[in-house]
Amino acid sequence: MKFIHTSDWHIGRQLHNQSLLDDQAFVLEQIIALAAEHKVDAVIVAGDIYDRSIPPANAVALLDDVLNRLVQDLGLQVIMIAGNHDGHERLGFAAKQMAASGLYIVGPLSADIHPITLSSTSGDVVFYPLPYAEPATVRQVFECEASSHEMAMDVLLEKVRQHDSQGLPKVVISHCFLDGGSESESERPLSIGGADKISPKLFTEFDYVALGHLHGPQYKGAEHVRYSGSILKYSFSEQHQHKSVTLVELGAQTPIDIRLLPLTSLRDVRILEGELDTLLAQGKTDIKREDYLMVRLLDKHAILDAMGKLRAIYPNVLHLERTGLMAGQQQVALSRDHIKKGEMDMFCDFFSQVSGESLTQAQQAVMDDLLTKLHNEERQA
Amino acid sequence: MKFIHTSDWHIGRQLHNQSLLDDQAFVLEQIIALAAEHKVDAVIVAGDIYDRSIPPANAVALLDDVLNRLVQDLGLQVIMIAGNHDGHERLGFAAKQMAASGLYIVGPLSADIHPITLSSTSGDVVFYPLPYAEPATVRQVFECEASSHEMAMDVLLEKVRQHDSQGLPKVVISHCFLDGGSESESERPLSIGGADKISPKLFTEFDYVALGHLHGPQYKGAEHVRYSGSILKYSFSEQHQHKSVTLVELGAQTPIDIRLLPLTSLRDVRILEGELDTLLAQGKTDIKREDYLMVRLLDKHAILDAMGKLRAIYPNVLHLERTGLMAGQQQVALSRDHIKKGEMDMFCDFFSQVSGESLTQAQQAVMDDLLTKLHNEERQA
Repeated sequence: MKFIHTSDWHIGRQLHNQSLLDDQAFVLEQIIALAAEHKVDAVIVAGDIYDRSIPPANAVALLDDVLNRLVQDLGLQVIMIAGNHDGHERLGFAAKQMAASGLYIVGPLSADIHPITLSSTSGDVVFYPLPYAEPATVRQVFECEASSHEMAMDVLLEKVRQHDSQGLPKVVISHCFLDGGSESESERPLSIGGADKISPKLFTEFDYVALGHLHGPQYKGAEHVRYSGSILKYSFSEQHQHKSVTLVELGAQTPIDIRLLPLTSLRDVRILEGELDTLLAQGKTDIKREDYLMVRLLDKHAILDAMGKLRAIYPNVLHLERTGLMAGQQQVALSRDHIKKGEMDMFCDFFSQVSGESLTQAQQAVMDDLLTKLHNEERQA
Repeated sequence: MKFIHTSDWHIGRQLHNQSLLDDQAFVLEQIIALAAEHKVDAVIVAGDIYDRSIPPANAVALLDDVLNRLVQDLGLQVIMIAGNHDGHERLGFAAKQMAASGLYIVGPLSADIHPITLSSTSGDVVFYPLPYAEPATVRQVFECEASSHEMAMDVLLEKVRQHDSQGLPKVVISHCFLDGGSESESERPLSIGGADKISPKLFTEFDYVALGHLHGPQYKGAEHVRYSGSILKYSFSEQHQHKSVTLVELGAQTPIDIRLLPLTSLRDVRILEGELDTLLAQGKTDIKREDYLMVRLLDKHAILDAMGKLRAIYPNVLHLERTGLMAGQQQVALSRDHIKKGEMDMFCDFFSQVSGESLTQAQQAVMDDLLTKLHNEERQA
């Protein structure tokens, strides 16, 4: 049995108000191509299919297209579970009618854990898709005590342990936060204060564990207890991550084989740091200048329409930080005199940017008078 | 081939802010039972499955349950098209993966009209599901001229005419407004000023036409060009309608047989008219006092908390009209004296309702003075 493990597609997500649908379509296209190239039997998506419980219509249309390609065109089996971002009822609609085609979507948690046995020429495997569930949901569905995420997960995993797979390998699919996992800024915490953490030890006994939630690819506790990571960088904190899907091969007789298949994004997500003139000059020969950028400007003086100037070269600057200016401002003491001086400096910068010339001494004197007068009026008011 | 034709389920709809989900579950249960009792081969739902393009999650869960009962439990084939209320992309998600189970959902219009041949022991029939589409959508999808709903429908029907059904009967499923059809208040107009009207003649050549949109069951042009009507009364204007589904039997050799199967609602939707005391007295022995009611009170005097008094007997009064009071008010001329007299009358009614006694002459005099004083001040202001 050979399958691709992926997760955290977050279809419909935006990055700083920029739609990523084209980027998502581009990378999902690669997953379809990789599935074909490696002749996999199945694709497993471990939750956060959509970014929101009510995804935009074009996100629904994109997922529909991807599933048609995988299931109808390539004849693959696909198992998806709902993550903490998904709307469980919506995602699970008509799931029973899809199963006959080899598409298994598990939305709301149910008391039957519905193991799915998939067949392949190299042996069969039993998959246990466990959708994301709050401890309160687990308590309600299984009528049990489970105050923490870990206790709730143990209730679910006990069902998996008890199920007789007839000697076939057991693969658990889950969307949760393993203790010690490294986080990115784009994950929405499952719970406040660390109550969402689950010991990786709970999972090590299974043959493979396909996890979703953390956006960086990683394993915890054992090499076969894995996060595939998201398909795109969904925050600038992920700039140094390498996104991939996980290719897994396992069978009753064969030792497990795990490989990462790298994904290429249409536009990278990265941080540029430097002075404006340097960045603008570099940009002219930067073949990746259409990447999604956060720019940290080190210039210490005011700049008129810095964003506009940057976007003329780098069209997808999404966020601008005036690191240099902030550093300068932090040094300014809060006395009235200092603030006045700050305004004068700001105006000098502004004037020279607009006119291309520096203020003359006479002009400076007029400006200084004006500022003093304004501050006096302010004090009297 | 025996099938049930129904439409306009509007799952998730409210009536005067009252959720109808229980009522919808109750009547959909009957449709499942009728399908089993009459041993039908298929159920056809001609649009407006949901009431909104983004239905609430409990509406999605109800439809999921109904489809599981029809498709999984009864083994029936179900064809649904999107109506003008439905979100086409959302409703059509994963439709290709459902078809293998006998569930055919047609969301967005596509250039292929996808005829569906359903088999039965009494012969096969070809169904042509045409989802609701604006003329602009038809122009775009078929790259044609079609300025009106009628011209757009003709483009679609031409595809149906051209399709070779190998001598099998042709059933068209459509969601539109036929010219001359009788409307209810609960339908959302497809277009302003009558541009949505389509001649019934366009449809008469087909063996059966399963229509949705109009909420009263009716046929237009010919007996086999039919609206099944909605499953519930969705406005008080429908109080005298009898809701039903349509049972259709047809085959290559057999003449068509059409019967209406009545539906019973959990709570009826009706208008009560009369004086408060009479209605309250009647209500005590009214076994249908939990119906959804619009009450028209004929009393000509002011009544304190009429809604509260009515709801103590009739818990589901959704709307109250003071018909008697309105009629009285219309007769009042707009002179200052008449208005003053009106206020005095109103206060007398109010006082006797609260205290259970009439105003004494002395009390009336005080009140009269007060009103005169108030009006004088008002005039001077």
